Amino acid sequence: MKALVYNGVRDVSVKEVPDAKIEKPTDVLVEITTTNICGSDLHMYEGRTDVEKGKILGHENLGVVVEAGPAVYRVKVGDRVCLPFNISCGFCENCEKGLTGFCLTTNPGSAGAAYGYAGMGPYSGGQAEYLRVPFADFNCLVLPPDAEEKENDYIMLSDIFPTGYHATELAGVKPGDTVAIYGAGPVGLLAAYSAIIKGASKVMVVDTHKDRLALAEKIGAIAIDDVGGNGVEKIMELTHGHGADCGCECVGYQCCNKHGHEVPNLTMNNLVKAVRPTGGIGVVGVFMPQDPKAADELAKKGRMAFNFGEYFTKGLRIGSGQANVKAYNRQLSKLIASGKAKPSFIVSHELPLSEAADGYANFDARKDGWTKVVLKP
Amino acid sequence: MKALVYNGVRDVSVKEVPDAKIEKPTDVLVEITTTNICGSDLHMYEGRTDVEKGKILGHENLGVVVEAGPAVYRVKVGDRVCLPFNISCGFCENCEKGLTGFCLTTNPGSAGAAYGYAGMGPYSGGQAEYLRVPFADFNCLVLPPDAEEKENDYIMLSDIFPTGYHATELAGVKPGDTVAIYGAGPVGLLAAYSAIIKGASKVMVVDTHKDRLALAEKIGAIAIDDVGGNGVEKIMELTHGHGADCGCECVGYQCCNKHGHEVPNLTMNNLVKAVRPTGGIGVVGVFMPQDPKAADELAKKGRMAFNFGEYFTKGLRIGSGQANVKAYNRQLSKLIASGKAKPSFIVSHELPLSEAADGYANFDARKDGWTKVVLKP
Amino acid sequence: MKALVYNGVRDVSVKEVPDAKIEKPTDVLVEITTTNICGSDLHMYEGRTDVEKGKILGHENLGVVVEAGPAVYRVKVGDRVCLPFNISCGFCENCEKGLTGFCLTTNPGSAGAAYGYAGMGPYSGGQAEYLRVPFADFNCLVLPPDAEEKENDYIMLSDIFPTGYHATELAGVKPGDTVAIYGAGPVGLLAAYSAIIKGASKVMVVDTHKDRLALAEKIGAIAIDDVGGNGVEKIMELTHGHGADCGCECVGYQCCNKHGHEVPNLTMNNLVKAVRPTGGIGVVGVFMPQDPKAADELAKKGRMAFNFGEYFTKGLRIGSGQANVKAYNRQLSKLIASGKAKPSFIVSHELPLSEAADGYANFDARKDGWTKVVLKP
Amino acid sequence: MKALVYNGVRDVSVKEVPDAKIEKPTDVLVEITTTNICGSDLHMYEGRTDVEKGKILGHENLGVVVEAGPAVYRVKVGDRVCLPFNISCGFCENCEKGLTGFCLTTNPGSAGAAYGYAGMGPYSGGQAEYLRVPFADFNCLVLPPDAEEKENDYIMLSDIFPTGYHATELAGVKPGDTVAIYGAGPVGLLAAYSAIIKGASKVMVVDTHKDRLALAEKIGAIAIDDVGGNGVEKIMELTHGHGADCGCECVGYQCCNKHGHEVPNLTMNNLVKAVRPTGGIGVVGVFMPQDPKAADELAKKGRMAFNFGEYFTKGLRIGSGQANVKAYNRQLSKLIASGKAKPSFIVSHELPLSEAADGYANFDARKDGWTKVVLKP
Repeated sequence: MKALVYNGVRDVSVKEVPDAKIEKPTDVLVEITTTNICGSDLHMYEGRTDVEKGKILGHENLGVVVEAGPAVYRVKVGDRVCLPFNISCGFCENCEKGLTGFCLTTNPGSAGAAYGYAGMGPYSGGQAEYLRVPFADFNCLVLPPDAEEKENDYIMLSDIFPTGYHATELAGVKPGDTVAIYGAGPVGLLAAYSAIIKGASKVMVVDTHKDRLALAEKIGAIAIDDVGGNGVEKIMELTHGHGADCGCECVGYQCCNKHGHEVPNLTMNNLVKAVRPTGGIGVVGVFMPQDPKAADELAKKGRMAFNFGEYFTKGLRIGSGQANVKAYNRQLSKLIASGKAKPSFIVSHELPLSEAADGYANFDARKDGWTKVVLKP
Repeated sequence: MKALVYNGVRDVSVKEVPDAKIEKPTDVLVEITTTNICGSDLHMYEGRTDVEKGKILGHENLGVVVEAGPAVYRVKVGDRVCLPFNISCGFCENCEKGLTGFCLTTNPGSAGAAYGYAGMGPYSGGQAEYLRVPFADFNCLVLPPDAEEKENDYIMLSDIFPTGYHATELAGVKPGDTVAIYGAGPVGLLAAYSAIIKGASKVMVVDTHKDRLALAEKIGAIAIDDVGGNGVEKIMELTHGHGADCGCECVGYQCCNKHGHEVPNLTMNNLVKAVRPTGGIGVVGVFMPQDPKAADELAKKGRMAFNFGEYFTKGLRIGSGQANVKAYNRQLSKLIASGKAKPSFIVSHELPLSEAADGYANFDARKDGWTKVVLKP
Repeated sequence: MKALVYNGVRDVSVKEVPDAKIEKPTDVLVEITTTNICGSDLHMYEGRTDVEKGKILGHENLGVVVEAGPAVYRVKVGDRVCLPFNISCGFCENCEKGLTGFCLTTNPGSAGAAYGYAGMGPYSGGQAEYLRVPFADFNCLVLPPDAEEKENDYIMLSDIFPTGYHATELAGVKPGDTVAIYGAGPVGLLAAYSAIIKGASKVMVVDTHKDRLALAEKIGAIAIDDVGGNGVEKIMELTHGHGADCGCECVGYQCCNKHGHEVPNLTMNNLVKAVRPTGGIGVVGVFMPQDPKAADELAKKGRMAFNFGEYFTKGLRIGSGQANVKAYNRQLSKLIASGKAKPSFIVSHELPLSEAADGYANFDARKDGWTKVVLKP
Repeated sequence: MKALVYNGVRDVSVKEVPDAKIEKPTDVLVEITTTNICGSDLHMYEGRTDVEKGKILGHENLGVVVEAGPAVYRVKVGDRVCLPFNISCGFCENCEKGLTGFCLTTNPGSAGAAYGYAGMGPYSGGQAEYLRVPFADFNCLVLPPDAEEKENDYIMLSDIFPTGYHATELAGVKPGDTVAIYGAGPVGLLAAYSAIIKGASKVMVVDTHKDRLALAEKIGAIAIDDVGGNGVEKIMELTHGHGADCGCECVGYQCCNKHGHEVPNLTMNNLVKAVRPTGGIGVVGVFMPQDPKAADELAKKGRMAFNFGEYFTKGLRIGSGQANVKAYNRQLSKLIASGKAKPSFIVSHELPLSEAADGYANFDARKDGWTKVVLKP
């Protein structure tokens, strides 16, 4: 089959590889119809991880079941399914609590597995014609009949819509709250969208890319251009000096200042300033436990010069970590089905799988208007 | 009246001062019968704050109402009352949500006020014969008839029992959980006690002071002597390699390593290591937004070299800040009244007010066996 | 001053009465600018309560502070304020938990007080020129500068918007949920509106009045005309046979069947059928602990022939009771201020106080199009 | 193999039946070492259900895995496992939320399945030598090494300890609360035990059987003998006239008054009286959606003359339904392992399987001292 393969730093290509196939009785095989390039794929693309050469990438996947193992009970051949990026067993101590992003079974010795990702287990990704899905009865979200026509909406349930939503859950967003979001990439925009769905009274999105800020405004958020570095003051003004009730970090360790230098503590320390005393902050932007290629000495060891004193004095709460997609994808799918949510608004480019390498290059360059790339194998 | 006054670094004394009195119609005047020296009083005593000379210290106060302002409705002369260390109005946006530690009224321009404390408003403390209590109907916890005989239990409701309990709330302790607590001072011990009350299956207390660890064992916790620096490994062993479900930070910015040097990030980074993925951490040890007298360059600016990458990868939650005493003191008083809680187990010394200065000196020196000093004016 | 007074069954009139005035140092006096007639005022109007003759009615009140007692701290003369219908002290055991609808101070011997209402304490209502407001610092919601132009929105914060919202809180409505609401009166419509604000995927409103159902559709809910009694089947169809995730009872004990007879268990037993196993039901329609004038023998004693067996087998949860208005009014006011909520959509008639008696008569007759009457003293 | 079989009203016997065996690849076969007679088994024994003749009874089961299907991943032959009474799939919409008592897969057309129980699917019970366990990876709680010596403790995790705990969860019991429990049978006693573990300040258990009340006192609860019918007044006295913070219904539809007549609404209406305004009530005693053999006309249709008016006026919450055992069994097992819980205190009789019929007869007669029967096949 054809699949997008990692060859080395900033080098990916679509190649012929051995077919994906059923390996265990609880697996299904899915013919991929839509698969996205994720911002976190760029961490691998840019050589900031130890991902092995030859890995098939892609953890945002949707398709049709074409074969089911003999112990698959619920999912049927022909079902259109969206796959959470986290691969989970359904029966370990974390999965039984709904913490499927921290499954103790699927990536032994660690907590949490994913398709096609560095350090997340031996699973191939779905930027390919076919994908093997383990523990299929647990992992597959079977989509409703309208799925084919709304495929660019439902695909967002694999990762970024639940991840954006997770940010708002970790931050504790409630109806009426004011919310400050750092980052207007796909995850930040869907965090803003989630906050709006939840009934926030004011959603403020901070970034420096005008095309992304325009999308934030389009969905009813307030765009704050931080190019001059005064995003915090604007949030304070918009909240009558109180600070936002909640904050979301949707950027991660590769946050850059206006000179293009990585400043890993920029967003977190700004959020500590911009959120009101006793408020909550949700962190879904990725931070690494070590990052040998970082410029910053602390960052190499996975550390951050964090304003802990201010954080404590204000009595803030911070929740973090990758989303447990299954905790949200079913509820969010009901919003898509009823027409109340349309997360495909972030899609800027739809490409055939054969042009995936170009998609990586342009997305990585943050070319103007390249917000989100959807691949159609 | 007589009161303990701050004269300068490591210099306090009991002096004759003007009588406390009713200033507003919603005040009461309380004759203090029990008042404690708190670990955080030592921050002022040691000169690590900007507290003004002449300030009457003391924020853990209990006594009898001797006069009530004309607009006091509920509290009566003769009531024995325990006063939360936080002074709150009851009607601001934070108080109405129960966030009384972050009152927006009582210390204008800031969030939160307290008796006799640096930066917490112009209020005198209660290490004195009398104390003025603002917004008395809201602030006074009227004690049940058994209060006089259990005064050393009820006094703990003013601060350290709710503060220890708050640590377990921020950490999300549930029945059956395993809990790691850094610090076996009064707050750490009462955090351990709170976790036990809540039905934790295993409570592990880490410290280097043997007298305090002995108290931890006395209440049914597992004492971990960290003098060799291997507390984290012991926690991992006791939790079968998983890490604790929850962690509590009850030390604060003046945490010292085995050589007696302050290492402000020691406890937090150890907790990030010792708590299991998706677990929660509650921080009630005090951290300062700036600390000009710190040895550490980051600490001077209120920063900490925090293991944010590991924190994110494990998907941990951290809650912080001073306790909203009123959120807990009534429920905890029911446990004292029914004989299910007896927090006076931490009291090591009971002194007359006249010997308060000695109490400060010995407590500050962490002399063996000086766990908690109770003053009787 | 002029005020609307209860004279007897279906007999109210605007009369000259003694002026409202400050009685305690914590009171303010409010000049009423907007006051509503509530569906529950009709219980008194129809003679179904023991309200005394001469009582000034009106518990949905908004106006301008014209005088403040000497112990009022926060509220200032000139402030435009919206008053929660529940009168609460702010410092009793229930108020300090936010349960202001069950204040233990303001109506001694009972739990909860209100303006101008049978059995809710000796307080005059606000369908008058002036209103005395006890414990003013706690009870007044001071409105933002845009209040005057949006007065018909903000007035809804006194009761029915928080009450409708409370129904959805008791029912546990979350983003993506399907919600069935019995009753399209003002409270039912604002429960539907609240569910939509919270991100429900499908909100179904059941009633038999076409004018009210039309309003439900106008805000984006699905109207179900129950005139033929098959509302439950329609809900089951709309939820693919599963039943709604949540249900709200917004009718109360005077629920009538299609023949116009009161059937007090109609809505509750239908909700038990229409809500999915493990779902939640919120009850804000009023049910009486005794109702001597009821036709039904059980109802006379405040009882209901409730389908408890089905309720148990399905594992449902039911929450009930009048709303704690202060728990919601501030957050909801932010939604009005930011333009995200406009609850005035339910207003059908705006009358001067002098025409209040006509308003009662027409509203009580449920004349077509008389959804909500706003009075302007 | 030998198994206890239902032959007809009050007629059960141990017979030779076909061996239990693996039927699907995700099954395991368990050799039963401990299995209990449950109070709800008596509903079938007494002929109050439509259970078919020949059914093997028994839903409280523990044993050793002797065979595993080819798709079982986690559970190994030789593991000692405790089986939740609810049989659940792990992947349906309810199971993925943790609502395993309402599985949509294992008993199609209904919500929830169980071993050996009327109306709960075609599954044989475990009062037998062997038991087939479906979806074994999800359903088996693998016990720690100390399980064999504490088997009478761990067996309680199959049903009554989680069920008692569930009552306290539904009621919202928090540390410091006062709790009123109706019923001192095994479930009521373990509800009391759970409330004590959670830090309740006062736990009051109401029943009329002196042997059971004695057990309640033994674990630190306050026993209230309701033989004179004044249980409610005693609760009011013990709570200083306020009522209990929380209530638990652990009796069910067969509740009898002092004359031995079934009065199905006795416990619920007493709880509505005995619980304070805004309090919570958890219902785990079984109530039937229809009960043709009931004396009461309403009860035949599954209805109850419920004090709904008082319930509403007090603003109470009621949660109900069978326990989702998997939501609690792992946490509770940690308490057994650490020695903090010892639920075997309720065991009164330990019999070989061959004497099971005698066990049923004596337990059904509620003979003095027959609290809980444990069978050892």
